Amino acid sequence: MVQRFAFHGRRPPVGARPGSLALPAEPSPRSIHVIEYGPGGHLVERDVVDVEELVEVRGAKGVKWIEVNGFGDEAGLRRIGEIFGIHPLALADVVNVPQRPKVESYEGHDLVIAWMARLVERECELEQVSFIVGADYVISFEEEEEDVFDPVRVRIRGGALICTMSADYLAYALIDTLIDGYYPVVEALGEAMETIENETIDQPSRRTMTQIHAARRLILRLARAMRQHRDALSTLARGENGRIGPEVRLYFRDSYDHAVQINEVLESYREIAVSLMEMYLSSLSIRMNEVMKVLTVISTIFIPLTFLVGVYGMNFEYMPELRQRWAYPAVWALMVGVAVTMVIFFRRKGWIGGGEEDDAEAESDEPRGGPTA
Amino acid sequence: MVQRFAFHGRRPPVGARPGSLALPAEPSPRSIHVIEYGPGGHLVERDVVDVEELVEVRGAKGVKWIEVNGFGDEAGLRRIGEIFGIHPLALADVVNVPQRPKVESYEGHDLVIAWMARLVERECELEQVSFIVGADYVISFEEEEEDVFDPVRVRIRGGALICTMSADYLAYALIDTLIDGYYPVVEALGEAMETIENETIDQPSRRTMTQIHAARRLILRLARAMRQHRDALSTLARGENGRIGPEVRLYFRDSYDHAVQINEVLESYREIAVSLMEMYLSSLSIRMNEVMKVLTVISTIFIPLTFLVGVYGMNFEYMPELRQRWAYPAVWALMVGVAVTMVIFFRRKGWIGGGEEDDAEAESDEPRGGPTA
Amino acid sequence: MVQRFAFHGRRPPVGARPGSLALPAEPSPRSIHVIEYGPGGHLVERDVVDVEELVEVRGAKGVKWIEVNGFGDEAGLRRIGEIFGIHPLALADVVNVPQRPKVESYEGHDLVIAWMARLVERECELEQVSFIVGADYVISFEEEEEDVFDPVRVRIRGGALICTMSADYLAYALIDTLIDGYYPVVEALGEAMETIENETIDQPSRRTMTQIHAARRLILRLARAMRQHRDALSTLARGENGRIGPEVRLYFRDSYDHAVQINEVLESYREIAVSLMEMYLSSLSIRMNEVMKVLTVISTIFIPLTFLVGVYGMNFEYMPELRQRWAYPAVWALMVGVAVTMVIFFRRKGWIGGGEEDDAEAESDEPRGGPTA
Amino acid sequence: MVQRFAFHGRRPPVGARPGSLALPAEPSPRSIHVIEYGPGGHLVERDVVDVEELVEVRGAKGVKWIEVNGFGDEAGLRRIGEIFGIHPLALADVVNVPQRPKVESYEGHDLVIAWMARLVERECELEQVSFIVGADYVISFEEEEEDVFDPVRVRIRGGALICTMSADYLAYALIDTLIDGYYPVVEALGEAMETIENETIDQPSRRTMTQIHAARRLILRLARAMRQHRDALSTLARGENGRIGPEVRLYFRDSYDHAVQINEVLESYREIAVSLMEMYLSSLSIRMNEVMKVLTVISTIFIPLTFLVGVYGMNFEYMPELRQRWAYPAVWALMVGVAVTMVIFFRRKGWIGGGEEDDAEAESDEPRGGPTA
Amino acid sequence: MVQRFAFHGRRPPVGARPGSLALPAEPSPRSIHVIEYGPGGHLVERDVVDVEELVEVRGAKGVKWIEVNGFGDEAGLRRIGEIFGIHPLALADVVNVPQRPKVESYEGHDLVIAWMARLVERECELEQVSFIVGADYVISFEEEEEDVFDPVRVRIRGGALICTMSADYLAYALIDTLIDGYYPVVEALGEAMETIENETIDQPSRRTMTQIHAARRLILRLARAMRQHRDALSTLARGENGRIGPEVRLYFRDSYDHAVQINEVLESYREIAVSLMEMYLSSLSIRMNEVMKVLTVISTIFIPLTFLVGVYGMNFEYMPELRQRWAYPAVWALMVGVAVTMVIFFRRKGWIGGGEEDDAEAESDEPRGGPTA
Repeated sequence: MVQRFAFHGRRPPVGARPGSLALPAEPSPRSIHVIEYGPGGHLVERDVVDVEELVEVRGAKGVKWIEVNGFGDEAGLRRIGEIFGIHPLALADVVNVPQRPKVESYEGHDLVIAWMARLVERECELEQVSFIVGADYVISFEEEEEDVFDPVRVRIRGGALICTMSADYLAYALIDTLIDGYYPVVEALGEAMETIENETIDQPSRRTMTQIHAARRLILRLARAMRQHRDALSTLARGENGRIGPEVRLYFRDSYDHAVQINEVLESYREIAVSLMEMYLSSLSIRMNEVMKVLTVISTIFIPLTFLVGVYGMNFEYMPELRQRWAYPAVWALMVGVAVTMVIFFRRKGWIGGGEEDDAEAESDEPRGGPTA
Repeated sequence: MVQRFAFHGRRPPVGARPGSLALPAEPSPRSIHVIEYGPGGHLVERDVVDVEELVEVRGAKGVKWIEVNGFGDEAGLRRIGEIFGIHPLALADVVNVPQRPKVESYEGHDLVIAWMARLVERECELEQVSFIVGADYVISFEEEEEDVFDPVRVRIRGGALICTMSADYLAYALIDTLIDGYYPVVEALGEAMETIENETIDQPSRRTMTQIHAARRLILRLARAMRQHRDALSTLARGENGRIGPEVRLYFRDSYDHAVQINEVLESYREIAVSLMEMYLSSLSIRMNEVMKVLTVISTIFIPLTFLVGVYGMNFEYMPELRQRWAYPAVWALMVGVAVTMVIFFRRKGWIGGGEEDDAEAESDEPRGGPTA
Repeated sequence: MVQRFAFHGRRPPVGARPGSLALPAEPSPRSIHVIEYGPGGHLVERDVVDVEELVEVRGAKGVKWIEVNGFGDEAGLRRIGEIFGIHPLALADVVNVPQRPKVESYEGHDLVIAWMARLVERECELEQVSFIVGADYVISFEEEEEDVFDPVRVRIRGGALICTMSADYLAYALIDTLIDGYYPVVEALGEAMETIENETIDQPSRRTMTQIHAARRLILRLARAMRQHRDALSTLARGENGRIGPEVRLYFRDSYDHAVQINEVLESYREIAVSLMEMYLSSLSIRMNEVMKVLTVISTIFIPLTFLVGVYGMNFEYMPELRQRWAYPAVWALMVGVAVTMVIFFRRKGWIGGGEEDDAEAESDEPRGGPTA
Repeated sequence: MVQRFAFHGRRPPVGARPGSLALPAEPSPRSIHVIEYGPGGHLVERDVVDVEELVEVRGAKGVKWIEVNGFGDEAGLRRIGEIFGIHPLALADVVNVPQRPKVESYEGHDLVIAWMARLVERECELEQVSFIVGADYVISFEEEEEDVFDPVRVRIRGGALICTMSADYLAYALIDTLIDGYYPVVEALGEAMETIENETIDQPSRRTMTQIHAARRLILRLARAMRQHRDALSTLARGENGRIGPEVRLYFRDSYDHAVQINEVLESYREIAVSLMEMYLSSLSIRMNEVMKVLTVISTIFIPLTFLVGVYGMNFEYMPELRQRWAYPAVWALMVGVAVTMVIFFRRKGWIGGGEEDDAEAESDEPRGGPTA
Repeated sequence: MVQRFAFHGRRPPVGARPGSLALPAEPSPRSIHVIEYGPGGHLVERDVVDVEELVEVRGAKGVKWIEVNGFGDEAGLRRIGEIFGIHPLALADVVNVPQRPKVESYEGHDLVIAWMARLVERECELEQVSFIVGADYVISFEEEEEDVFDPVRVRIRGGALICTMSADYLAYALIDTLIDGYYPVVEALGEAMETIENETIDQPSRRTMTQIHAARRLILRLARAMRQHRDALSTLARGENGRIGPEVRLYFRDSYDHAVQINEVLESYREIAVSLMEMYLSSLSIRMNEVMKVLTVISTIFIPLTFLVGVYGMNFEYMPELRQRWAYPAVWALMVGVAVTMVIFFRRKGWIGGGEEDDAEAESDEPRGGPTA
């Protein structure tokens, strides 16, 4: 399992004025989808084509969720910022991805940066999602259009509890969905580590090493992100920024709890990965040693024998043994005797033959259960 | 010693509304056992079949311990929640196991999540036990029926001190029982590590490596759980949640102390496990080196001899030695001399013969006392 | 990538009175450039030749940026200190480089020490830049004249937002430029590490080792600097020193955020570097093992054969085989048979031939994406 | 140096009511010695046989030191608790050893748990000593009778300063004696580590490894204990528990200081032990490599020579050299030449002969001074 | 570079009454030098022979610096304590060296313990220097007479700023001189590490290992001392003990800053030392591997050749090749062919000849710049 990034670091040039936007060279087209809802079944959905329509949206009653997918042109973005009174630094953090997951308070709104994690073809993809949380609206910014928020949309359309709650609960529902999205990733990672673990014990190859290294880097990255999410959620759960009501804080505490749990699992993966590297090294060395041992034993058995046959290959005139009828078979007998004695000796010492048994034993004792949880 | 989990991670789908319950596919049947008691020998026990009976239970005088084993159907669980005013998020934490050990305050009740550790056939099993602690009742939720709380039941029936105390003391008695249940597990783990230690020094095999790795993972997991229990107990001992009376806080401080002690033992196991891995690697390398040394020494002794016999196997016409009567015995004498000289030289250098002595010495100096405590 | 320092540690002798200045043996000439600006397009730039002109500068209206490049003579420096009321200890920290990045409050002014990082011919160069931040002026001290502040100068000349802000914003603009200057360095470092990573897997040589070591030292140094910058910026962002207005604090928070981000990337580089060292060691050992395995296998195949030909080189009179016509080809057949059997056996065991496949597999599975971010 | 425990973990069964006492199967007989003293030379000593005598002791004027050696029967212990109003949980901590070193406040008295360390036949023995500190008395509990408090007894009998001070000073005097008892243990440990260090460099054997491992475990255990003593002493020195007067706090601060110092020494031992393990591994590998190098060089020199003599052992009819008179000596000359060339080449490369010089150099540069302090 | 201690641990026996002095067996003679100074050029210096003269000194106007070199007899020391009202515990800390660097407040005076570091013949020597800081006097205690405070004496005699300041500034001047004395030590250590680094890459020997180990221990020790100095200076700089005036606190902050800087350098040395150990191990293994590779290649080339000549040494009657005129040269040609093919094959595989190139490459890429700073 490796990681893939939907975004690559984009920053304005060094020394640019603060609040400069670094849009991608080929900006993705922008689509804006607005959902207005409120108690009593009030629910309006619409796609916004012209940014100016948002002036009207802003003024509407009820809770507004403005979903912005793709950044589009700079002028439009700046106009959105103007309409909702977004601080230029906040807007810059939305556009100049990646920013670390965080919560920042500005006058009139909060900025929440989160990273979405998804599995795409067995690879882990991370993407920044930014939220501007105002008194009665939430703007979500994503660079690519995804269906990750579909369940929330369904809940709103279904007139669930969410419709009777204020904008901070909407923010919670969106962020919670992102955090929960880490669970399948972490589970897949756990399964991948189990596979690596088995490979480490049974078939350590160079591929195992690069896989352990890759897993370690992915864990490092996810743990770092999750730690920052956790801190951000703790800020929200304790209501430090003053925008989250006491009821919704309970919900954020639940989200915070999930972040803590995922983080702990990742921390233990990290230690397991270190342990795997050590096991890999030792597995490699055991395997090599077994090979060398067998080969060296073979050489060692034949070397004295070769010496013996060399002795009777000497051309001295007076070697009485050479004349005896029984000498040749006797030498063979001697050599077989030497070889058998050495094999028995080596077996007793456990230098040959023991390797296979170790394997058998080991198989029956492999750690059960994966590293998950 | 490996770990086994009675529960596997169950979560509602990503994006589900908060408070969703993820019951197991085949829910275990639910049995509810209620004990009401109070000062003056008041004691009523009954098995509740219909959830509605709990309305009456709730209204009863005295302290109520409602033991729920198995989750049963969702409707029944929700009804229990309604009767006792359990917050939906608290109920979700009870059902969607595993949650990390923690204490959370809600209006009217606290939620305490703890993990029970037991030894089942030399394996460590963990199971979540959840407590809803109200003003005059404690509800305990377990997924499988266990007899772990039997001693508490016996104490209540015996009219011990516990009968004169309030619900927070009951909560203490139950949680303390869970925490103390870690002692036998940790002791068994200590014994297992001693066995591994001896094996590491005497007979390092691939099995040793997987065992060290498995022990490390189990330690990691237990230490993580115990750290969280410790933090939760510290919250209770300091009375932060406002529900624990000053007298019972002393008892929780005692429990907290046990958690600290177990945690410290686990922390030292962790360091010992790292040290064991290093010892294993070096044991392996010493053992291999000894084999290679002996084998190489054998080769090295025979190689010059083989060269010598080769010399007199040459077919030159004018090799005066070949004609001499004494030449053949002389060559033998020379060869024996060379071999003996080399053996003496190798012995002096400590390259052969020393290995055995090392073994003997080492045996008399093995660390006494296990890693326990 | 290695590091280079523009400055070498200069300190006054041990026991010198505090505030002593340790100027370089050959002091670089001093050039002073002043920019005065204010709202309404007020903008004056001038090069100051005589230090006494600064008296007039100090008295002028608007925000003053006094850029001092090169320290020049001690008397001049002390006079500058006098004119602006700089505390002798602050002046000593400006001159006796390197000081750690920090913020210190003195009466009437603050001292900010920062380290500039730049890439010069693929090497990382660090240089101390010091700022004296007063109520309406900023003095920047650099030992060598650089064009790093050009973008800020351009922004002032262009009459941008900066012209309407006070001196603390100017300080922010300058410091932010320095911090952002770490991005390209860190990115280059990330690329260098990717190169090392590939080399570690494919061609581990002694050069790889010294490169990993050098990278580790550079990371260590940059992370240390960045950690201190972060702490200094946190002080400024929280307005602890009482000189930064609430509006500008938001900007410093942004800078602080960049420092945190760079720091986190460096921390992960650090772990990756440790992992690289382990991979290097294991790569080395795998590669060596492959060589040894092949060579040992060759020896092992030939040793029994050599024994066999030795047998028939013996000079016994009664060796019936020697007389047979078919004996010589039979021995050849036997030897080929032995050799083939051994090769097949070794192949089955995976001792030969498997190495190449491992390589192929490994190549298709290298971790994608560099260590950046 | 290994560790030995005078006590083995004793706990009541899981689920037992809090305050249960787990006395050893064969309880050691209890002896109680009381010293009453006060200003003006007031001094009474007596051995208490019947527990009831303590009622009178409690009522006596002056400071009382009740020394309880051996726990005896449960009823007697509980009676002592009753007389002095000891909380059941405190009494349980005294009996159910080992408890971690700590200070706990109860109504009317404090509980101080400390661990005594002593050297017994070159082994480190740990034993729990518990103190109940009341307003005008100190009860000390030890499981085995020791003479560790003799110096304090002598000071009291000698009418020293201690006789004019209150009970908290007595508690200080006793605890300080225990803490100072770690100095000789730590010094012996330091000497043991120096011995191991020399062995690691000069004669690394399997015994060295088990010794390093044992030392590491002992250090781990002592450091853990000392850290907890330090925290407990810090509580006392800051007077947090409200029982220690301001004058005596200064003395506890001194004790705290000793604990910090011992702890720091142990922390550095810990790092040194890790370094020793690495040195051991590398020593082992150097030593092995030297052996292998010499042996391999010997083989390598003889292998081409053996080939050469093999050439002239061939039975071709037309080998003109075989007929020449000078051929045999010439082959000898050639062989000597090849051997000498190879030896010179190997020497130049530093593959032989260098080992001894390394030894010599190393000896003159061994780290002087032990790891102590 | 190794460490040497001018003092060895001296403690009173376990259980001695607090404040006991453990003077060296052969106490160094005591010399007392007093400097009185004040504003307006007031300056008196004198050598005190009789301790009683200090009564008069204490009463004198102006700031008094009483320099005590060598402890002399206990009675005299106790008398000095009496005259200046030094707390017995403070006096014990002065005499019973080593104490950890610290600041402690007593009634009427503070105790400052610092460790002086000096280079003596390329070795690092540490010595405790203690200061009693009163309202208008500073007593400095040193066990051996050193000229380390000469620069301060010169500054006082020269009538510098110091003469107009109070006793706390004198304390600062003395302590600052000690702290700055670490700079040359740390620089020498940095140079030593650079030398070790080069040796590690070019000529790894057993000596290198003991040097790395020794450096590591020295770094450990210095870092520990410096960390404690830093904490003590932080206490002084924040004026926590209430004796340091606000002006002098600025100066202590400067000293604190130096301690932080030295500490950070030592921390990075520590990481570099760990990295060096790893490089050493890998250097060793590369070097060994190169040797073994060359030797094994030589063996491997000759083994098939030896087999070949063995074939034609067989004594079969019917070996047609033996009769052919061209057979002998043909066998030679075959053998040369086999050898050349193998050499080419090995070269292609990079098993021979590559080692030298690696060396060359490595040399051009060694990390530039030492570990300093």
